[in-house]
Amino acid sequence: MTDTVTLTLDEAQALSLRTLTGNGFSEAHAQAITATIMAGQRDECHSHGLYRLLVCVATRKAGKVSNAEPVITDAAPGLVRADAQGAYSLLALERGLPLLAQKARAQGIAALAINHCYHFSALWPEVEAIAAEGLVALALTPSHAWVAPYGGTKGVFGTNPLAFAWPRPDNNPFVFDFATSAAARGEIELHRRAGKPIPEGWAVDAEGNPTTDAEAGMAGAMLTFGGHKGSALSAMIELMAGPLIGDFLSLESYVYDAGQGATPYHGELLLAINPETFMGGNVAHHAGRAEALFDAIVGQGARLPSQRRYEARARSLASGTVSIPARLHQDILALTP
Amino acid sequence: MTDTVTLTLDEAQALSLRTLTGNGFSEAHAQAITATIMAGQRDECHSHGLYRLLVCVATRKAGKVSNAEPVITDAAPGLVRADAQGAYSLLALERGLPLLAQKARAQGIAALAINHCYHFSALWPEVEAIAAEGLVALALTPSHAWVAPYGGTKGVFGTNPLAFAWPRPDNNPFVFDFATSAAARGEIELHRRAGKPIPEGWAVDAEGNPTTDAEAGMAGAMLTFGGHKGSALSAMIELMAGPLIGDFLSLESYVYDAGQGATPYHGELLLAINPETFMGGNVAHHAGRAEALFDAIVGQGARLPSQRRYEARARSLASGTVSIPARLHQDILALTP
Repeated sequence: MTDTVTLTLDEAQALSLRTLTGNGFSEAHAQAITATIMAGQRDECHSHGLYRLLVCVATRKAGKVSNAEPVITDAAPGLVRADAQGAYSLLALERGLPLLAQKARAQGIAALAINHCYHFSALWPEVEAIAAEGLVALALTPSHAWVAPYGGTKGVFGTNPLAFAWPRPDNNPFVFDFATSAAARGEIELHRRAGKPIPEGWAVDAEGNPTTDAEAGMAGAMLTFGGHKGSALSAMIELMAGPLIGDFLSLESYVYDAGQGATPYHGELLLAINPETFMGGNVAHHAGRAEALFDAIVGQGARLPSQRRYEARARSLASGTVSIPARLHQDILALTP
Repeated sequence: MTDTVTLTLDEAQALSLRTLTGNGFSEAHAQAITATIMAGQRDECHSHGLYRLLVCVATRKAGKVSNAEPVITDAAPGLVRADAQGAYSLLALERGLPLLAQKARAQGIAALAINHCYHFSALWPEVEAIAAEGLVALALTPSHAWVAPYGGTKGVFGTNPLAFAWPRPDNNPFVFDFATSAAARGEIELHRRAGKPIPEGWAVDAEGNPTTDAEAGMAGAMLTFGGHKGSALSAMIELMAGPLIGDFLSLESYVYDAGQGATPYHGELLLAINPETFMGGNVAHHAGRAEALFDAIVGQGARLPSQRRYEARARSLASGTVSIPARLHQDILALTP
């Protein structure tokens, strides 16, 4: 037996759907979750690929996540509200997106607030979906209160990612998606499992002292990237994707989980802006300015964010396959009797 | 003669107005610029206080900046456009703000795009003015192409500040305002004048090598804060406050200046969000969540951003005075015959 199993894209998709519906997810939720899992696997973001089936099924089996249909509300001329009613966020996003795009075109700028959702997904597939409508996109979400504010020693913020997409004619959009924590929680966990020290600046121990011990860092608090600036940005994300949309702080999500280690439960905020409105005419000229910026970055040998993902995507689409560890494949198969 | 001159707030304001109108600024522009300069001096942000009169007058004398009345356009339900027509940005902001606030209340979210402006001001007075309307605020602007992208060695981005304000009942708003460059250009200049080395991570020399030599750093390129994440954020600000609003990149602003060292000329984007709309009712409860976040930060001995400024503000308002170096006072007096 080899260490890796290669599946066609169709096989991988069918495996995801079968695993989710076989473990109690409705067809609609299974489809929405599978679309995101397939995007992650295709782009070789393994932690957001088929591996997530294990987490989704475990969270479902813990009785945490519902199969509710999202309730979409036209809350204001510039605001769509999608109440996930205790289900995963992805169907709420899918159902809210058409009205968000319509409002962004009509108003120039609009927001989608997803409430009361379990949230496991990377934000880049979400801002890419908005960019596919020709709109500029931002997405923010809290998580669990693992990350200390600058100058502090106790977890208050989530890993609080920020994602942005800028649509480009005849090209993949300019996209970034980063956690405002110095490292992903999963990276610290991987160091802990491997018995390796973590770099300085990732975490403090339970007494608030800087640590390179992964175990001590997991028990203490993670740190934000970029010192006081990253901490300020994380606070903004916490406020905008929490209290502003009438939903949980990372502190509340953490308490709500009560140590069960399920997917975090909270809200998400997405913004969409119509460049045609904002540019005020002469769209080709102004869009060309953005291309000049990208050329100035790439032309000096620097890379645009997401390039590694786009290269992986091209490989997966060309081969029509994805590969996962054989052990993971076995674990997924074992989920469905 | 002492090294410091203390002025009452009224005297300082009169000095600013007299200096600006005495050097060709219209009454309306002088008032708008003075309001921002006084806010900076009051909060002891000396680089954005009365010192800026020297820069404003020099830029005006260079024939760069106009006295035009801003043209306010109701561009879309969610967008106000304020064309500064080659004048300083502040009167355009002042004139655009009422319609921005009105739109944010009606739509839930709205934007103000300021175009074709000279821009010298910190962004925190601007987001504070929006927060004073009970609205959540974001502000972004490019500058000159001094800052290299992550992995690069040549200036592409401006210092590209991001500011955010969250209104708090019976309290100063939660506000941050930071440059996405690792340091302010002025800080590197101060090190150069003092003959002191700059910290690692601030700049590269003209060949793209890391440098602690301030002179070499000024001739090379500044770096962003926070590695690839700060660089991505800077790119977002460049795109949103440049091409998205149909205005200059920092690269274009730099070329336009043609080495004259005048105030950068470009655009600015401000967003305003109405929490009453976004919270979806139960505003006191959700606003209380934000207060719980601030308590969790302050309660562990960390500080909120802007605390130093708010403390300085309280001192200035209590004494009714501001103090500036005697030499600066002389230089300002010398501007007006």
